[in-house]
Parts: sequence; structure tokens; C-alpha cells
Amino acid sequence: MVSDSTLQYNFSGKKVSCFFDVDFELIDTVVKKDNTIFITDENVYALHREKFSERSTIVIQSGEEHKNQQAANEIIDQLINLHADRKTFIVGVGGGVVTDISGYVASVYMRGLRFGFVPTTILAMVDAAVGGKNGIDVGVYKNLVGVIRQPEFLLYDYTFLDTLPDEGWVNGFAEIIKHACIKDKSMFAFLEQNSLMKFQSSAELTGLLIKQNVDLKFTVVLKDEHETGDRKLLNFGHTIGHAIENASRISHGSAISIGMAAACKISGILNGFKSGQSEKVIHLLKQYQLPVEFNADPGKTWEILQHDKKKAGNKMDFVLLNQIGDASVHSIEMEQLHEIFKEIAS
Amino acid sequence: MVSDSTLQYNFSGKKVSCFFDVDFELIDTVVKKDNTIFITDENVYALHREKFSERSTIVIQSGEEHKNQQAANEIIDQLINLHADRKTFIVGVGGGVVTDISGYVASVYMRGLRFGFVPTTILAMVDAAVGGKNGIDVGVYKNLVGVIRQPEFLLYDYTFLDTLPDEGWVNGFAEIIKHACIKDKSMFAFLEQNSLMKFQSSAELTGLLIKQNVDLKFTVVLKDEHETGDRKLLNFGHTIGHAIENASRISHGSAISIGMAAACKISGILNGFKSGQSEKVIHLLKQYQLPVEFNADPGKTWEILQHDKKKAGNKMDFVLLNQIGDASVHSIEMEQLHEIFKEIAS
Repeated sequence: MVSDSTLQYNFSGKKVSCFFDVDFELIDTVVKKDNTIFITDENVYALHREKFSERSTIVIQSGEEHKNQQAANEIIDQLINLHADRKTFIVGVGGGVVTDISGYVASVYMRGLRFGFVPTTILAMVDAAVGGKNGIDVGVYKNLVGVIRQPEFLLYDYTFLDTLPDEGWVNGFAEIIKHACIKDKSMFAFLEQNSLMKFQSSAELTGLLIKQNVDLKFTVVLKDEHETGDRKLLNFGHTIGHAIENASRISHGSAISIGMAAACKISGILNGFKSGQSEKVIHLLKQYQLPVEFNADPGKTWEILQHDKKKAGNKMDFVLLNQIGDASVHSIEMEQLHEIFKEIAS
Repeated sequence: MVSDSTLQYNFSGKKVSCFFDVDFELIDTVVKKDNTIFITDENVYALHREKFSERSTIVIQSGEEHKNQQAANEIIDQLINLHADRKTFIVGVGGGVVTDISGYVASVYMRGLRFGFVPTTILAMVDAAVGGKNGIDVGVYKNLVGVIRQPEFLLYDYTFLDTLPDEGWVNGFAEIIKHACIKDKSMFAFLEQNSLMKFQSSAELTGLLIKQNVDLKFTVVLKDEHETGDRKLLNFGHTIGHAIENASRISHGSAISIGMAAACKISGILNGFKSGQSEKVIHLLKQYQLPVEFNADPGKTWEILQHDKKKAGNKMDFVLLNQIGDASVHSIEMEQLHEIFKEIAS
């Protein structure tokens, strides 16, 4: 199934196909029903039960708090019961939690099954399902365990967004704004000219934006799959953001929005990022109904932040903006970061 | 550290170095003390405690029954407590259980840390630690979860073998005989001319044999890391063997010895493998004190065998001998295999 609305990306010979704006039922032209096992969560399953009829399906609990080893174990037990073997194809249908955990289980079950994703939220469509990072949380530490392995395909059926609650839209736009901030000032301007409501009422506009974001992320990941360089930029807002997310259990989008606002301030202090530009970022986040004020327990947040994967020794790679649409990675001493953090978090 | 006793293998640009016949302390020329965490088991730790002094070390429980997710979780918790980060290097020191699980945890912690092995048993030295397969068991299913990722080095200090109990020697020779059966008839003859006792009393002879076996396995794995072809031959004796191992909880070496004896019989029935040759294999196994008679519960063994990773649909890839030193993979219908299995197991 290759058409005008298909993009293909080549990872050292392994292709990832993105099928944009297609109907979920087209999955039957991509995978064989008799050797495919679907993984979804109870929310998606309740809303789209008909899509899974006559499909072998594992339904997991919804929510980031279930993206853990226990849920992975339960999926593995069900795969055994369903007699999954090396020919089995796994398709994760859902938001970031479903795609992260199903990609992870598919990567380790029998040392790796083939897999693909049908992302159903804005966040999963533009970010979580893209780029091959998969994994689970361990206690308060996000994505501490996982591997990097690309799915064979991403299938985009935008009608899933019809059932996405408002906070799901808000959540997803945090990552879209992140992409604009680090790589694309014209997308930033396009977002300024529009609004959540406009996107929610136009599948066409949303489809265009999603495709653009997927392409932006793949372009970064293709150059640097294992995050030794440019891919690090995608962590903009995520260092403080992830720590807040786990310290206060707010949504990923809200947390990284606060993280981006904080990173703008740090960019001002350490990187000469202009305050006028910083205000524009913060204004755009607010325009898309995202929070920008630090609101978590500073001590707990810092404690979690110290276990971030990006920390190495007494330094941490931290993404700072040079200007809107342009970012760079800076190795910051933890001590210096702590001083600035205390100021921002107080 | 590269010397005459070093072999290097190149996996698409990633090198695996094998340091043969060196002292454990040379590890300090390979990894940095301040960012390395050692993983070993309580047996090795009790026997060689002095080797781990002033080294950050995680000690796990000994035994295949602990090669599971729970043990992996405990290692991960300890890595968090030890503030392991992306710069941390993991060194697994022990038998196959230690190298399998430490390679696995190293492959998924923070989406992959660097790692190397110091195998301390014959089995780990010639087989388990070689080839990048790592993982854990899930219930009765051996190595059901894992990934393929090569260690950066293997360090061979043969003095570890001084504390290896007799059954450890017997166990390891099962894999050596397997290598001879599938790939090397002159090694088979060499084994016939010698005995366990001779090897146990000559570090030089044992060292030569180990190096030869490591090289044999690497040669196979290099050509076919992801087991789509020649690597499958290394499963000789392992299909029935793994099932017996879990059905009756005997040692890996004993189980695959029985599995090899059974595979010889099946090779006779389906592949024209001569009965005289079959008798020679069985005689050699006995010569190295390995069992050859099927002694597990047939029903339970067959039930477990059906979940073998090599089964796909209603067929299974099964390794048969053509002659001693030469093997091939045959896709056998499960039904046919079951008929033959019942005969052998009765």
C-alpha cells in the first residue's frame, strides 16, 4: 500500500512507511489477520470496539501509571497464551503509552517481533509513535527501560481524533510547539496564526500539521537514530518537564510546556536567548491552553531530575534555544543547573 | 589491550574483543573503575570475593531459576541506587545466567549501556557469553524475552575454572560436543581421543579447546547474527533439550545432551544419518559423563516444546545431522515431529 499520502523513511535498509489519512481498515492490506496481534488500551477499545472485532487483541489499562514492567509482563503472558511466535506481527493502537509499551514488548518477546503502530492521539501521531524509542517507566523514572527499534509502519486514521478529549489535543500541541521552537520558525508563525479550535474543526488543517511534524521528527531521527547529536534537540523542555511530570503526575504535555517555559528562561541566562522571543514562546503555549508556571515540589522535582538519562557524571546535556526555530545542546554542570533551577522553581 | 591472545570480531563496525588466557585484574585496562558496575552471582562472589574489592558490584542469586524478570527488576533497582547513567559500563562476571541477564539489563537500561563479560564456566566461555543473545526465562519458557546485542569484550581468565565443580565441566562439554557435531569433525575426533579428566588437569589443553570453540561460534554468528540461516545450526539438541530442561529442571548440559541423542535418532529417521555415526555421538556424550536417555515427563515436555521460539505456525525449524561435523536445518510439521517424539520419549 503505497500512495501519494505515503512517506517512507529508510533506516540502514529498514523501511518505515507512514500511511497518512487512511481508514483503519486498510490495516488488512498491511498485515495478515491470522498472524497479527493488536494491543490497545481500555479507552480506545471502549470507543472503537467494532474496529477490533475478529482481531486477536490484547487490551491493557489506560494511563501513564500503567506503562510499567507489570503491564509488560501481563502482555507477555497474554502473548504466550495466544501462542505468539516469531512470525507474529504486533500492532499497537493507541496513544503514547500503548505505542511505547507495545513497541517495547515486541522488541524483547522472542528477541524481537515485527511491529507497527496506529497512533490515536495527537501526541502519539507527532511524537511518541515516531522515532523508534520505546520503553516503560520504572517507579518515578520515565522511560528508564527500553530499546530503540523502528516500527515497520505508522498508519494515520484521523477519525480517531474525533473521540480525543480536549485535554488530549492540548497535550499533543505541546510537542508540536516544541518542534516549531527547535526547528521550524515558519511552523511557529503558522501556529501563532491559528488556534486549537481551528485545528479541532478542520481535519484537513490538522492532517497537514501532523504530516509536517512527522516529517520534521523523522528527518531529525534519520540523521541521528541513537541520539548522539541532533536528536538530543527533541529533548527541549523534557528534562525539567519529565521531572515535573513524575513529581506531580500532571499530563506529559502540561509538564513539558512548563519545562519549555523554564528552558526559555535558562536559554536567556546561559545562551543569550532574547526575552522578547521567550515571551513569544510562552504566549504561544498559553494560546494553546498549556500551563507555563512551575507548580511542582522543587525538592522532589530536582531529586527526580538527577536520575535523568541525559545526566552523565556531574554534567547534563540540556537543550537551549538560540532563537525561535533554532536550538543547541549545552553540557551544563549539575551544580550550576541546580542554582538556576532553584530560582525558577521558587 | 591487544595481544597475541586477543581475537577481534567485527559486527557491522562494532568490535567484539576476546582476551584469552589473561588475569582478571587486566579488566582495569579495559574499563574504568569509576564508571563500571560489575554483576556477579553469590557463588562466584563467595569464591572470588577479593576480585571484587573496591569495585561497585551487584550480587544476584545463583541458578537458572533466578534468570527471570524479578531478578532483572532487582538489578535495575540497584543500578538506580548506584546512580548508573548512560556512561556506566556493565561487566557480567559469571556463568550463563549472569552473562544472559546482565547483557539483557545492560541492553534495556536507559535504552542500552555498554557492556562486556568475564565468563567463569566452560559453558559461558564457549557458548552463553558468545554471540550477543541475552535474555531471561518467563515461567517454563527459556529465553522467551531478550534481545540480540553484542558485548564489547569477553575476558577469559581460566583460573576461574579451578573452582568450577565437576558438574560444571560436564555441563560445558555438552556445548563443545554440539559444536563438533555440527561443524568440526576433527574437533570431534580430538574429543574422542581425550577425556574430561585430561582437560581438567591441563589448563593449556582446555585453553586451546575453548579458544577453538569461541572462534567456531563467532564464525557462525558473524555470518548470521539474527539467526535467519547458519546460526540456527547452533540449536542442535536444543529444541527437545530446552523442553526437557524446563520439564524436569535438570542442568542445561544434561538436557541438551539428551536432546542431541534424540536429534541423532530423528536425523536417522528423516535425514539418513547413519546409525554408526549416531552411536559415535552417543558414545562421546557418555564419555564426557553426559546422560543420553530421555527421562522427563513426555506430555509436559511436548507442551513446553510447542512454545519454542523456533516454532512458526504448524512447523518447526529442527536441526538434523547429515554426518558428524555437518548439519542442516529442516522445517518439520509439528504433527510429524510429535509422532517421532512420542516414540523417542516412550
